[in-house]
Amino acid sequence: MIILAAASLEPTDITRLMLALAVLLGAARLLGEVSRQFKQPAVLGEILAGVLLGPTVLGYVSPDLLEWLFPISVGEPSRIALDGFIVIAATLLLLVVGLEVDLSTVRRQGKATALVSLLGVAIPFILGASLAFGIPEVLGAGERGLAAPLPFAVFVGIALSITALPVIAKVLMDLNLAKSDLGMLIISSAMLNDLVGWIGFAVVLALLPAEDGAAPTTSVFTTITMTLVFLGVMITLGRWLCHKALPYIQSRWSWPGGVLGFVSVVALTCAAFTEYLGIHSIFGAFIAGVAIGDSPRLRERTRETIHQFVTNFFAPVFFASIGLRINFVSSFEPLAVVIVLAVAFVGKAGGCYLGASLAGMSKRESWATAFGMTCQGAVGIILGQLAYSAGLINDGLLVAVVIMALATSLFSGPAMQAVLKSKTRLRLADILSDKHILIQMQANTPTEAITELTQRGAELTGLNAETIAQTALEREEAMNTGLPLGLAVPHARLDGLAKPCMIIGRSMIGVDFDATDGEPAHLICLLLIPTDDPDSQLELLALFARTFQDDDLRQRVLAATTPTEFRAELNLAVGTSA
Amino acid sequence: MIILAAASLEPTDITRLMLALAVLLGAARLLGEVSRQFKQPAVLGEILAGVLLGPTVLGYVSPDLLEWLFPISVGEPSRIALDGFIVIAATLLLLVVGLEVDLSTVRRQGKATALVSLLGVAIPFILGASLAFGIPEVLGAGERGLAAPLPFAVFVGIALSITALPVIAKVLMDLNLAKSDLGMLIISSAMLNDLVGWIGFAVVLALLPAEDGAAPTTSVFTTITMTLVFLGVMITLGRWLCHKALPYIQSRWSWPGGVLGFVSVVALTCAAFTEYLGIHSIFGAFIAGVAIGDSPRLRERTRETIHQFVTNFFAPVFFASIGLRINFVSSFEPLAVVIVLAVAFVGKAGGCYLGASLAGMSKRESWATAFGMTCQGAVGIILGQLAYSAGLINDGLLVAVVIMALATSLFSGPAMQAVLKSKTRLRLADILSDKHILIQMQANTPTEAITELTQRGAELTGLNAETIAQTALEREEAMNTGLPLGLAVPHARLDGLAKPCMIIGRSMIGVDFDATDGEPAHLICLLLIPTDDPDSQLELLALFARTFQDDDLRQRVLAATTPTEFRAELNLAVGTSA
Repeated sequence: MIILAAASLEPTDITRLMLALAVLLGAARLLGEVSRQFKQPAVLGEILAGVLLGPTVLGYVSPDLLEWLFPISVGEPSRIALDGFIVIAATLLLLVVGLEVDLSTVRRQGKATALVSLLGVAIPFILGASLAFGIPEVLGAGERGLAAPLPFAVFVGIALSITALPVIAKVLMDLNLAKSDLGMLIISSAMLNDLVGWIGFAVVLALLPAEDGAAPTTSVFTTITMTLVFLGVMITLGRWLCHKALPYIQSRWSWPGGVLGFVSVVALTCAAFTEYLGIHSIFGAFIAGVAIGDSPRLRERTRETIHQFVTNFFAPVFFASIGLRINFVSSFEPLAVVIVLAVAFVGKAGGCYLGASLAGMSKRESWATAFGMTCQGAVGIILGQLAYSAGLINDGLLVAVVIMALATSLFSGPAMQAVLKSKTRLRLADILSDKHILIQMQANTPTEAITELTQRGAELTGLNAETIAQTALEREEAMNTGLPLGLAVPHARLDGLAKPCMIIGRSMIGVDFDATDGEPAHLICLLLIPTDDPDSQLELLALFARTFQDDDLRQRVLAATTPTEFRAELNLAVGTSA
Repeated sequence: MIILAAASLEPTDITRLMLALAVLLGAARLLGEVSRQFKQPAVLGEILAGVLLGPTVLGYVSPDLLEWLFPISVGEPSRIALDGFIVIAATLLLLVVGLEVDLSTVRRQGKATALVSLLGVAIPFILGASLAFGIPEVLGAGERGLAAPLPFAVFVGIALSITALPVIAKVLMDLNLAKSDLGMLIISSAMLNDLVGWIGFAVVLALLPAEDGAAPTTSVFTTITMTLVFLGVMITLGRWLCHKALPYIQSRWSWPGGVLGFVSVVALTCAAFTEYLGIHSIFGAFIAGVAIGDSPRLRERTRETIHQFVTNFFAPVFFASIGLRINFVSSFEPLAVVIVLAVAFVGKAGGCYLGASLAGMSKRESWATAFGMTCQGAVGIILGQLAYSAGLINDGLLVAVVIMALATSLFSGPAMQAVLKSKTRLRLADILSDKHILIQMQANTPTEAITELTQRGAELTGLNAETIAQTALEREEAMNTGLPLGLAVPHARLDGLAKPCMIIGRSMIGVDFDATDGEPAHLICLLLIPTDDPDSQLELLALFARTFQDDDLRQRVLAATTPTEFRAELNLAVGTSA
């Protein structure tokens, strides 16, 4: 007879594994939702869940229960299985982060992006790295960090200068700014920042001497070369191959299952390769995400399915697991926390403000950019966790990094909101006349819709229709302006325009603006903005999105038969709720 | 300092884990898609991928590579991590199977369901169990199976009498029959069948003596009692609690993430509990799925997100893993295969045909039911895999069960299609006049839509409008009739109707019939069928769904402004494509 494989996991191991997962996921999701109720990012609650379930609280109350549920002994099968799951979770999480990086957007935003991310990285990096190099013990270098002061300094510099793309993207969405020009600048700067940070971190890991103090088995040079080759190949050939494969897979394989499988396999393969190189699996998954996510062929709804499952199933387990191995109370080092917080806030915000100002943005926009970019969120925590596992930093610094990441994430949204808040509350009903409403659009595609709205825009503003259409279409090409709930907000910044102009079109058939919820747009708002009045764009865009959040109002304006009726519904709504 | 946890997985372990997952998932998805291209269920290709990567092929070509990628030594961390992932995958897979069981549908279908599933289970069970009890060696009892002939016989009986709900549901969808009365009968019979089979299997596991031949640690009686108590509590109190919690979670938490987390936590907790009872974790996950899936509050799109990720990420890894531990060539036992195939086909189809005939169904419908119910698919394989791990059956019988499950799945769809194929090809354009088309529906809800269409139905058939509406609404309540692509097919079987009648309504706003793709229905077809002509329902329903599969045609009829134009588009389409 052939291989009769004995079970590697006994029933008790499986019971513990399932229960550990259930408890981690349950606590993390629950506290994550509580965070959201308080308008905070979910990651805050997810990490807190780990702190409660780890040595900080549960270990204090009942060390036996902690050891039974989350065993520490290295050979324990249920721990190995749980750790394996957590590694897979982290890999998939970084895949999702990578998917959100859109290289073409970064390229199109050009100068402003380059300035904001360059100065936003350079200043906190130099501050952090110098401090780390000067006072490694105070900051909290780990054993291997003390042995290798340069990699330690570089790591601290990177950890303090990174921006959390997923969290800031979420904050911008909450503020209805994700599709505005300011939002695009922040997102593309954060993308570039992420990319540079992760590559730097890969180099740090490669530079790190082996754990026993001996020289690493493969030479540093080989590892760095291989990493750069991998990166180069993935962003050129790999990206090209993915973009060729995606349309085929989306049209011929089951949907969205085919793409989901394809994306996962590419990510896991890259993860295995970078782990083999010695620079951790999640870097490979991140680069795989960048290579794939860039494709305009990847439909928003596929992205959303991956995103939903990873964010709600894998990510909470990963974030909660951070607290499982660390005592947040006994490892709290006030001095390290203060230094880390100071560099992250002052260095990062200062650098980004400088960059935005140099790029010619208004004072208000520059501050908003600076506050937005300060957000560290999940990425800082993942980096910290990795550096900790590698022995580069000690418990105290990890705790400081986690606290800093949470503090910046909590600060970012409200600070941006405060800076951008308009002084008087505009009402949509006040700025529209019948002429601003197209009650029965004929368009079937975004291009047709924009052209149709542009005609009216040209009549109202006296500008050339072709110029308007071209500007709006270029903007649309850079990033789709579809919002959930059947809304879309194409827009154009135009020279020679006296004041902002908004044309709202209603399409009964719906036009697919590739919104995240897959809904075709029924209400399409074309926004024409004077080049010298960028702030008005944010206000009008937010006003439109906010007004039509209301399900009831949307239903009622869709049932209106004339522009006047449409406006009457708006007026009623503004009177009561908005 | 506090717990500085050493890594339980070395970089090489992580590399192997990631690569093993990538290879398993990649091969399984690829061959799964190839299967689909040949109109076969994906599970066929997924299992084949495991056969290629396991001892049967890869082990023959390069045993070293096999051992490196999928190590067999029990203590190997990368194997433990992979096995842990596979256990989690199986658990989530059974959760999804359970989610598809709708207890209220089973109850509503009443007599026919009871007869079909009773006889469909009893006949193959008695055949299989008697054979297994009489000739255990020939069939292939494992070591523990030989020691415990009764549990072995019961297991074989269950394995040969079960129906695979996920596969048959997929086959019915492919044939556009999922929402027909025949489809509902088959699905509810399969659900009841699944439920009985899994409970029986739990009892078998409980009855099994411990591996060392000694009496089990907990008494059989305790385990069975606990299992039944768990089942009873979950289907009553647990179900009630889930139904109370779901609306709250769906409205207050992030969507669909909140529900996704909730469902996973409930499933993992139940899995841990049943594993603790000694009856395997996946039984708990299945029951959790039944308790939750039953809820009308669980929106189709949430279900779909879970379904997509599990079916395309976890399930392929699980199915491929079956082939990893077994040599399908050397373990092939012709006699066992022949016996298992014969009992599964003849016993199952015979029993179900008898049941359907006794319930008063037509000959054609009875055969279609019998062939549909024969489908074994994934569920048979999961049971076989579990029995094999428990030492109840040997390699030869597992291979026979896998072959039988695949053979019945391949047979089921084409056989049903052959029996149901209509003799002449109907054309939608031929059976509709202008009076059968409502070009501008006002309805906002399914109930309003059915009432609106009923008015016209009453005029055309001379029947009482209230009777029609009530029958159709009752049917709708039992199971939503929304189809993907914006279609819906409410229907009613009525006494005193001379011939079938079809009224098609067009809604520009769209009515939410809770279709799997979340699209509101724009084309709603009310079907009125004479009670004594059940076959016509299948034909007309399939005709409607088939005709409007065409994206182009759908767009064009949505643009039509009068019933005559609507029919003209249909006529054009029928002339060219349909």
